[in-house]
Amino acid sequence: MAAPSEGDAASLLPDLPGGPLQAYRARASFCWKELALFLEGEDMLRLKKSIFSALEDDPLFARSRGHELSLEKHRELTFLRCKRFFGCTLVRVEDMVRNPLSMLTLITCLGTYDWSLAQKFLLHLLVFGFTIYKSGSERHLEYLPKILNMEIFGCFALTEVSHGSNAKAIRTTAHYDPATEIRNPKTLLPMPGVMVGDIGKKLGLNGIDNGFAMFHKVRIPRRALLNQTGDVTPEGTYVTPFKDAKQRFGASLNNLSIGRAFIVAMSVVNLKLAVSIALRFSATRRQFGPTDEEEVPVLEYQTQRWRLLPYLAAVYALDHFSKWLFLNLAEFQQGLMGTDCSTRQAELGHEIHALVSGSKPLASWTAQRGIQECREACGGHGYLAVNRLGDLRNENDPNCTYEGDNNVLLQQTSGYLLGLLELRLQGGARLESPLGTVDFLEAYPDILDQRFSCPSVTGCLESSVPLAAYEWLVCYLLRESVQKVNEEKRAGSSDFEARNNSQVYRCRSLALTFLELTVVRRFHEYVHQPSVPPPLRAVLQRLGALYALWSLNQHTALLYRGGYFSGEQAGKMIENAILDLCAQLKDDAVALVDVIAPPDFILDSPIGRADGELYKNLWTAVLEESQVLERASWWAEFSASKTHVESLKSRL
Amino acid sequence: MAAPSEGDAASLLPDLPGGPLQAYRARASFCWKELALFLEGEDMLRLKKSIFSALEDDPLFARSRGHELSLEKHRELTFLRCKRFFGCTLVRVEDMVRNPLSMLTLITCLGTYDWSLAQKFLLHLLVFGFTIYKSGSERHLEYLPKILNMEIFGCFALTEVSHGSNAKAIRTTAHYDPATEIRNPKTLLPMPGVMVGDIGKKLGLNGIDNGFAMFHKVRIPRRALLNQTGDVTPEGTYVTPFKDAKQRFGASLNNLSIGRAFIVAMSVVNLKLAVSIALRFSATRRQFGPTDEEEVPVLEYQTQRWRLLPYLAAVYALDHFSKWLFLNLAEFQQGLMGTDCSTRQAELGHEIHALVSGSKPLASWTAQRGIQECREACGGHGYLAVNRLGDLRNENDPNCTYEGDNNVLLQQTSGYLLGLLELRLQGGARLESPLGTVDFLEAYPDILDQRFSCPSVTGCLESSVPLAAYEWLVCYLLRESVQKVNEEKRAGSSDFEARNNSQVYRCRSLALTFLELTVVRRFHEYVHQPSVPPPLRAVLQRLGALYALWSLNQHTALLYRGGYFSGEQAGKMIENAILDLCAQLKDDAVALVDVIAPPDFILDSPIGRADGELYKNLWTAVLEESQVLERASWWAEFSASKTHVESLKSRL
Repeated sequence: MAAPSEGDAASLLPDLPGGPLQAYRARASFCWKELALFLEGEDMLRLKKSIFSALEDDPLFARSRGHELSLEKHRELTFLRCKRFFGCTLVRVEDMVRNPLSMLTLITCLGTYDWSLAQKFLLHLLVFGFTIYKSGSERHLEYLPKILNMEIFGCFALTEVSHGSNAKAIRTTAHYDPATEIRNPKTLLPMPGVMVGDIGKKLGLNGIDNGFAMFHKVRIPRRALLNQTGDVTPEGTYVTPFKDAKQRFGASLNNLSIGRAFIVAMSVVNLKLAVSIALRFSATRRQFGPTDEEEVPVLEYQTQRWRLLPYLAAVYALDHFSKWLFLNLAEFQQGLMGTDCSTRQAELGHEIHALVSGSKPLASWTAQRGIQECREACGGHGYLAVNRLGDLRNENDPNCTYEGDNNVLLQQTSGYLLGLLELRLQGGARLESPLGTVDFLEAYPDILDQRFSCPSVTGCLESSVPLAAYEWLVCYLLRESVQKVNEEKRAGSSDFEARNNSQVYRCRSLALTFLELTVVRRFHEYVHQPSVPPPLRAVLQRLGALYALWSLNQHTALLYRGGYFSGEQAGKMIENAILDLCAQLKDDAVALVDVIAPPDFILDSPIGRADGELYKNLWTAVLEESQVLERASWWAEFSASKTHVESLKSRL
Repeated sequence: MAAPSEGDAASLLPDLPGGPLQAYRARASFCWKELALFLEGEDMLRLKKSIFSALEDDPLFARSRGHELSLEKHRELTFLRCKRFFGCTLVRVEDMVRNPLSMLTLITCLGTYDWSLAQKFLLHLLVFGFTIYKSGSERHLEYLPKILNMEIFGCFALTEVSHGSNAKAIRTTAHYDPATEIRNPKTLLPMPGVMVGDIGKKLGLNGIDNGFAMFHKVRIPRRALLNQTGDVTPEGTYVTPFKDAKQRFGASLNNLSIGRAFIVAMSVVNLKLAVSIALRFSATRRQFGPTDEEEVPVLEYQTQRWRLLPYLAAVYALDHFSKWLFLNLAEFQQGLMGTDCSTRQAELGHEIHALVSGSKPLASWTAQRGIQECREACGGHGYLAVNRLGDLRNENDPNCTYEGDNNVLLQQTSGYLLGLLELRLQGGARLESPLGTVDFLEAYPDILDQRFSCPSVTGCLESSVPLAAYEWLVCYLLRESVQKVNEEKRAGSSDFEARNNSQVYRCRSLALTFLELTVVRRFHEYVHQPSVPPPLRAVLQRLGALYALWSLNQHTALLYRGGYFSGEQAGKMIENAILDLCAQLKDDAVALVDVIAPPDFILDSPIGRADGELYKNLWTAVLEESQVLERASWWAEFSASKTHVESLKSRL
């Protein structure tokens, strides 16, 4: 990307208001607008701006401060908002095909505003619409325009009451009977034989109605079957282009990869919002100080910085990874549609599946822990609903579960790595993959012989140090995992048992560290490119090093155990490097938040507003709530009367 | 305690229903009733039963399934319920004085039902009532009967908008003027010069109304001042028995210790409920299996056991510690009231302050992480509001913040340890404390010379192994902390800076590991007493060892770094011992939950009911929700009409 001119940035990125955050902004080592433009590019900044403005300018999207929204009303509003976005032309289907990032930007912008809206939009477009487009055939094309203007809207039923992770064991069967969807399109009442219902309130995402559907001898027209992977002829014969049932089922589930890649991006958005709120709060909240007279911003405390800045670094590293992953997945999908049957396409499929299956857990867990840390770092202010950290926690939470439970998904990633190693040992084929994420494993035995060598803390302030440690770590865990599986098998365990009994401390850690390594490497390479504008290099490299060292430090025990680290200094150097980087990034923190935070209306958190007027904004928000200054409506019952307890008892 | 007879247990602990959990119950190594009686004692079991029955039998406490409760209604109901409990005679004030555990049992039982109720009760009784009793004098005694029957009810205002942790810097001042409280007792309207309001919705505990009060030149009668630590004479002269302002302020804040001890107990309750739900779910939810035909309970998977059983062990260890702490604090308080001025009493005060300040963070964080793990371990079922894990997470969360932010509080504990060591180095006084928690530090240099010695995994299955490791670890972190503080000072840092810059990786870790050690030691000693009935010994010792090893394993990096561990085997042994203990406890898990779980009505989670009829209970609960089978009320607007989008637009 060419270096942007000052003029472009100015038109897309308005100046931020002055106020208490100004002191930190003035001390930043870089220009936040330049960084935003470098990271996002002009096109995406323009798209973001237009989506956020469309939301802020339309009364349908007004924030419902001051009164509680009932479940019913929340869902109605979400439906209306979703429909409004299908009616608008901010992103056309052609744009999404031409630049897949525009699709990702649209969904994440909607989610930055509200996840119920974004997910309803995504489910309808992708899981319903795209499934019909991709898994159906010509006879289903007529539905597509109606789907795109939401004349018809759909749902996707995957699991049974007793089957979640084990979707393969689902027991619903369909029998061919040549004759009649679920609700009558005119009355929206269920069709005969169909019982549909709502599963009730969830911890979050209550703008979306999750329901159940029971089918008892329901007739569905033969032509309604999405017949790309299997069809039924008018005579009742089942025909399929796939040779075995396992392969066919795998092809049908391919859509879940896209869903998982979106979850990675969604988790990053949640963490982005949470750290933006917590860091702006920390830069303006003052507490204690060197003297009784002067109190200092809590961001000045080592503990507060250490709690929050690694998550800020994680946002930058994971955000980059998420886009990279999405672009590769989009390319892969286009190959599938063009029926690319090359070996590279198949290998790319496996690699992307392993990356998506491991990065969904990494991103969703990092976000979940980070949001909790941000909530706590904001103290009681974080516990006020109006500041949004509770919603973020509740709405990020299911990212750990849906589209595959995190712990179960990690088995896909470890399985991929174990499989590659086995192939290498059996056939001697070179260990490599289309995206290159496993290529380092070719040096597997040599890497295991390497030892940590870094003479000073200063040397650790670079992501190449943790990168080398991570390569060793993944190789070590790969060897440990293989040994454990073999040990189990020698002791007579079945494959099923051997795999299950090798998860904790072995395969599970292998999958997570492999993904951490991949994220660290991607960001390392990204920030060391020659095209990075010189004024941005230092801050980006610090972010990369902080994320890498902080992640790696979770595994210091293994680095010592396996002999990569020895002596007291290695571990101390890593810790001191983390604290040094936090101190170095402290004055850049507010500007780094300015790069990632959406406009105030979208961020929707009084303690996180760009002007940093903490108490004024909080006070305004509290006073906007209804009845804030009123007595409780039931006050009279508790005033002087001696008999009110009795009267209340009789009333209940 | 004498071994209970079978007859006593039978009358207090009803048999549990048969059903899918029966298979696990039949495999338990011990009788759950015997364990319950050993842990709680007959008196507390009887009290628990009577409180739970009182709640279940009174329609005022009916669960509000099926409709959403507005904020206003939730608060009204909480107020009424609280008042009902002040009217009942289940626990009289005399009982609480005679056996402080009855007070703890009452509060935790109410909290097991609902924290808003329990906290409103506790705040009124303790923070309002007890403060007036303890900090006031004879002239305030007239209020006490009215407080106890809730004829008057109170609130406690501690912080200012800009002062939370730094309560000492509060700027509200009171000037003496001999003349007039906050609301008019008849109309409940604020008095002149007072502005009271509500701070709005919180992430949880919304049955309690948290508000703000602003005082502008408000006249308060002189006699309203709680004058135990300072008084104003009719002539306007301030008199106080304390020599300096710091000491006076410390004495006024002493009540917070009691609050913190309650928070430890509250956190344990939350974790207890969450693991009960998650383990009963895991024992009945089946997914995958060795063959396509047979699916196994998810508790059979190594990963699921490893995720949940350490938290079950934590419940047992922390529950015991919490009661021990509470009893010691109660004894200390009684000493204060009897104006015990002995050196032991002062030292006990410091020790308890350090223990309370460290155990609140340990317990609340363990619970918060555990609840999240339980939520995830229940998959999508855990995300349904009806199953209560969301409420538990939201209502445990503030335990990390109020009565002192966890990270800030930990400084009190590390400060105590550093102070003791300094005294020892200066004067050579023996390092010991009334409760004996720091006595091991007398052997500080010798302990640092010790090295891990355990020849086999089997040898690690005992809590004495992690106990020895923990003693080394605390000594190591104490040395590291002292060195860091001194290093900072030598580099020219002020005391304030030196302390702040020594928190992360040093003082903070020191405080946490000291508390972990203390909890591990207390439980180790408890389960190794001769009075433990022989059939219960094995399971209790396993729980102790699991909690100890699992906690210790967070610090393996330090054990290696400092040289306590060396070689690959030490770390592997700990991991293998954890997995072995999880496997050994797997068949006891359901019975261990039966010991700690409250009755179904109180637990209030369909997936956690004692009969284990997972899907039947869930289905029943979902169908109890209102409108579950109905169309959305706004259905007509989305049916066939082409013009409805326009009509909706105009309506909004």
